[in-house]
Amino acid sequence: MTATEDIHDLTLKSIRVLIADLVQQFNGGHPGGAMGMAAIGIALWKYTLEFSPNDPGYFNRDRFVLSNGHTCLFQYVFQHLIGYKHMTMDQLKSYHSSRLDSLCPGHPEIEIPGIEITTGALGQGISNAVGLAIASKNLQETYNKPGFPVVSNHTFCMVGDACLQEGVTMEAVSLAGHLGLNNLTVIYDNNQISCDGSVDLTNTEDINAKFKATNWNVIEVFNGSEDVLEVAKALAESKLSTDKPTLINVHTNIGIGSNVENNCSAHGAAFGEEEVDRLHIINGFDPGLKYHIPAEVYEFFGDLVDKGDAYTQKWSKLVAEYVFNYPELGVDFQRRVNGELPNDWKNYIPSKFSASPTPSRASSGSVVNPLAKNINNFIVGSADLSPSVNLIWDKKVDFQNPQVNTSCGINGDYSGRYVHYGIREHAMAAISNGIAAFNKGTFIPVTSTFLIFYLYAAPAVRYGALSDLKVIHVATHDSIGMGEDGPTHQPIEIAALFRSMPNLNYIRPCDSEEVAGAWEIALEANGPTILSLSRHKLNQYPANSKRELVKKGAYIFKDIESPVLNIIGVGAEMGFAYESAELLTKYGLPSRVISFPSQKIFEEQSTEYKRSVLQRGQIPTIVIEAYAPNGWERYANAGFSMHTFGKSLPGNAVYEYFGYKVDSIVERIKSYMIRVQKDKSILWEFQDLNC
Amino acid sequence: MTATEDIHDLTLKSIRVLIADLVQQFNGGHPGGAMGMAAIGIALWKYTLEFSPNDPGYFNRDRFVLSNGHTCLFQYVFQHLIGYKHMTMDQLKSYHSSRLDSLCPGHPEIEIPGIEITTGALGQGISNAVGLAIASKNLQETYNKPGFPVVSNHTFCMVGDACLQEGVTMEAVSLAGHLGLNNLTVIYDNNQISCDGSVDLTNTEDINAKFKATNWNVIEVFNGSEDVLEVAKALAESKLSTDKPTLINVHTNIGIGSNVENNCSAHGAAFGEEEVDRLHIINGFDPGLKYHIPAEVYEFFGDLVDKGDAYTQKWSKLVAEYVFNYPELGVDFQRRVNGELPNDWKNYIPSKFSASPTPSRASSGSVVNPLAKNINNFIVGSADLSPSVNLIWDKKVDFQNPQVNTSCGINGDYSGRYVHYGIREHAMAAISNGIAAFNKGTFIPVTSTFLIFYLYAAPAVRYGALSDLKVIHVATHDSIGMGEDGPTHQPIEIAALFRSMPNLNYIRPCDSEEVAGAWEIALEANGPTILSLSRHKLNQYPANSKRELVKKGAYIFKDIESPVLNIIGVGAEMGFAYESAELLTKYGLPSRVISFPSQKIFEEQSTEYKRSVLQRGQIPTIVIEAYAPNGWERYANAGFSMHTFGKSLPGNAVYEYFGYKVDSIVERIKSYMIRVQKDKSILWEFQDLNC
Repeated sequence: MTATEDIHDLTLKSIRVLIADLVQQFNGGHPGGAMGMAAIGIALWKYTLEFSPNDPGYFNRDRFVLSNGHTCLFQYVFQHLIGYKHMTMDQLKSYHSSRLDSLCPGHPEIEIPGIEITTGALGQGISNAVGLAIASKNLQETYNKPGFPVVSNHTFCMVGDACLQEGVTMEAVSLAGHLGLNNLTVIYDNNQISCDGSVDLTNTEDINAKFKATNWNVIEVFNGSEDVLEVAKALAESKLSTDKPTLINVHTNIGIGSNVENNCSAHGAAFGEEEVDRLHIINGFDPGLKYHIPAEVYEFFGDLVDKGDAYTQKWSKLVAEYVFNYPELGVDFQRRVNGELPNDWKNYIPSKFSASPTPSRASSGSVVNPLAKNINNFIVGSADLSPSVNLIWDKKVDFQNPQVNTSCGINGDYSGRYVHYGIREHAMAAISNGIAAFNKGTFIPVTSTFLIFYLYAAPAVRYGALSDLKVIHVATHDSIGMGEDGPTHQPIEIAALFRSMPNLNYIRPCDSEEVAGAWEIALEANGPTILSLSRHKLNQYPANSKRELVKKGAYIFKDIESPVLNIIGVGAEMGFAYESAELLTKYGLPSRVISFPSQKIFEEQSTEYKRSVLQRGQIPTIVIEAYAPNGWERYANAGFSMHTFGKSLPGNAVYEYFGYKVDSIVERIKSYMIRVQKDKSILWEFQDLNC
Repeated sequence: MTATEDIHDLTLKSIRVLIADLVQQFNGGHPGGAMGMAAIGIALWKYTLEFSPNDPGYFNRDRFVLSNGHTCLFQYVFQHLIGYKHMTMDQLKSYHSSRLDSLCPGHPEIEIPGIEITTGALGQGISNAVGLAIASKNLQETYNKPGFPVVSNHTFCMVGDACLQEGVTMEAVSLAGHLGLNNLTVIYDNNQISCDGSVDLTNTEDINAKFKATNWNVIEVFNGSEDVLEVAKALAESKLSTDKPTLINVHTNIGIGSNVENNCSAHGAAFGEEEVDRLHIINGFDPGLKYHIPAEVYEFFGDLVDKGDAYTQKWSKLVAEYVFNYPELGVDFQRRVNGELPNDWKNYIPSKFSASPTPSRASSGSVVNPLAKNINNFIVGSADLSPSVNLIWDKKVDFQNPQVNTSCGINGDYSGRYVHYGIREHAMAAISNGIAAFNKGTFIPVTSTFLIFYLYAAPAVRYGALSDLKVIHVATHDSIGMGEDGPTHQPIEIAALFRSMPNLNYIRPCDSEEVAGAWEIALEANGPTILSLSRHKLNQYPANSKRELVKKGAYIFKDIESPVLNIIGVGAEMGFAYESAELLTKYGLPSRVISFPSQKIFEEQSTEYKRSVLQRGQIPTIVIEAYAPNGWERYANAGFSMHTFGKSLPGNAVYEYFGYKVDSIVERIKSYMIRVQKDKSILWEFQDLNC
């Protein structure tokens, strides 16, 4: 063996044994994949990636995403070896412990320095990686000048057999191939083992051919658990691709060296004390010596901190010269690097709107399109519903491989900021998470489709919330009032999911003014937002709706003297609430109207404010919304809601079919109020008034 | 032209003009795809499919699924032409109307005779079709004998460009290829147009190569909007495949003949009166004559009713002879055809369980595995979590292509009833919908993965609910108590989605006895059920839990004299409720315990029963569950719930971290009760006691 081979060998053995030790410690975790991938790790961090341990957030770093997140020890152990200060051996030992200060959770989390994005559910990471590559590509095309490659990073992503079976992966892969993202390398840890056993229990496709059919380069490495240089060569080759993303199909051995090598038992359990001892011995280590990394191994990675410092210094210098040479572009670039919007961004939001009935999807377009047109942080796209979601601005340029000439003649380039995601809702949301994760605030990705189809995207929406990524989801056609497409397309239970999802703002504005407020919230938020918008025209309430008060979650929309009840109106169904309240007031039941665009934001308000709005215990509150009621019971004593799926009828007819008609609503509320007068105890039990 | 070509030509023109008329009528709908696919329709219903208009449910019929459901006029118009009695011209004219008796909704719905399954959201139908093919294959292998092909049907599925972009499609396609389902033909309406414009805006992959890489036959037809016989030939050829499913890539022209032919404007809007008139004229029809089908066209399809009758008669005779020759198998087959379980199915469910702490996933296994082993209606599978979900029974046989020899040596054949779905949660649920839709009750598909990953599968779970398909989803690892895998794997908001989804039972049993009750509910239900089960061991309550009372949704778990409060315990968190109640009672606050496995089932009970359980207005109720609270406010005045994502810690530690510890729960409840005593008005506002 050469000296290089020697040190690779020692390093591989050290890492494998360390991983076995760490998993044995608390008798839990995922050792096999991490062990099998050790050679890939050396090839990546020693020989390929540009990064800086002293500055994990270095803007132009190569991004690395661990899509097979359960192998996180792989990344933690390498973080330790390559000099990330936070990742001490003591921290490594916190894996699977009950230590609250642990930086080694069961799956990688974005809050940990050097982790680009939280992964775990399979298929998310690779889709995020496509987003990271899109972000970089767009910045390159927007800012780079001859001699000034201020953005030049590459994105690398590890996937396992499992990630490649997930639908979201195949969506993202298809789009990445179409877009020709040559700055993306996916490394496939091909160990042919998953939880159930060998992969051929369920998958016998030709992965290489499948990727080639989807416009990818494919490189194959056969001895991938041992041959560091061969992997490094493939990684280097992938960076030279001119017009395609690259899949490196690396054949590895899960649980290499253990008695369960190449067996599914190596995947998710400790090996047992005896076997760990044996592993120490066959790898040349003393079984008594746990958590041991030889000095030579530390030394082998010892140059990486200095190299990292050199990268960041060189880049800072390059940027300084760039700003000097291209002052206007340079200032803009620095703003993006700082993750800022132009100070005057709010000026693009209309201060007033037409008073004629307007679909809230159109209101949304009138708010965001001037922003998207003028502010290059925005990168907007649709899952093939561009004509329906009102997100196209004048002279938009598509983010597109400039080599593609489309049949419909709408072409683009990599500086474009409108993405045709295709009918790939899940990948759209996951890719947008990746774009947002490139660097906080540099991009504001906007996605769009019908609210119902965000159920396809829900796992990615969840990861955005979990990772606090500012992605804005424009969800139109958000009520049964969307009409004839019928129950398959009418959302009933979708809001209940998103209202209960932590860290996510789900906002359902009732008119253009509230839409403006909702967009302001979304743009000022840290995490993701879903804007829930109507297909059909909604009445406008210039005298009642207030964008500033949307930021309270709920507010008194129409007050009245000596009210005897509150009616909560929400989004597309505000009209029913408003008109019912007017009629009830006329009939001697003075009714206040409360607009309630966001439960989550309302919960964040003071008790005093909440009480001033709802007057709980003083007067009954009735909610009108054409969704499942779940959650409204917190604010209302009774309500009109949906307990079945919808129906294929024109918008007005479907509302009426389910009892959403002012006359009948008013009658039912009157009879409810009579019942309440007779027996106050019914206030204790939420009443479904249209059941 | 030959006479055949003549009648094809007239039929094509009649259909295209009729579709234009029907969409123009109410100025809405999807004409283009249906027009472009007309030749495929002739090839299918005139020349290929075995079906019976007089008996739409004929057991051995070829199944046809319209995965691109928005082109539903295609199917409605052909139903009319081929003699389905319900589909009159008057009914066709109800498309997009406000008629409540319409059988022509905006997307095909299973309740309509001849519609195999509800489709609409893209990718569902093709995945359902894979399920239909699996069902048929399994029956063939189980029952057919030489000379007695009692099950011999083929499954055909139409897809559009859009379906093929959806991830769930690629999951189902990959599995269908692996399984070698030669009884499945997918017909690709390749018009290269989607809503945004030409498909090459977002997709430039080589579909044929992609399918071939996934073990599919591919046949290409180029003149697919005109050449009926070429399509019919391809369909016939696909039926001869010996070991692979077939994709027929049929090139068509969306909106053929219209001024928006091959343009996205043809997709989802009426053409306008003038253009419809022009379409009449160029196709040789009088513009004044709307909704007109020439007599020759009716005549052309006139033989199909008799042919259908002949099919059903022949099959009935075949089955009668089969029963005579194979009496035991024949009786079993007839039971399956009738969609029945053996009468004694409940005997397989244990009447008692061990009193030692047991994970409810294990309880579930002990209930269902004897059923699945002994009753061949069950077809069980997992999304690569077989070792974790406790669904493997002794001597199970995998549903597997017998030609595949797996590396791990676990092989199977088509009579097997355990499916390795792979890491394809969405397809697993959608395929299971298809299996259930084969014939009501013939199969009971069981799926399994962690609860959190049912979010990937949620759109398909929804379609099962919408179509009333009895599929049972075994969702394990259903609480933060699952531990170290962390927030990516700990469900917080998932229950809120499924509790608010119409027609779906979401049941969270607290111990083995309740698990037995939950399975009984699932097996007696009409629609789908999610069983929400723990990874970790749960205490058993033989004196308290009652399987019969699970069927009430909630019940008094432990009563007490003169209670001052109710504590609701749910599923894996029952222990906290039960022990807290004991301690509080000891401390002078006599506390009843309510077990609450299902909100939806509880809502179906009488008001009297609900009041007897909850005593709303008499004593406060506190719920303890480690999920988002949304929905519990209906039943409780206060609660312990989750308002953030979870944390990567061992199970006990993560519970404790979020305040789920008996001591601290008791302290908080005591202080809550003191506050209530001082000021009853706080009962009006739901209190989050661990915030």
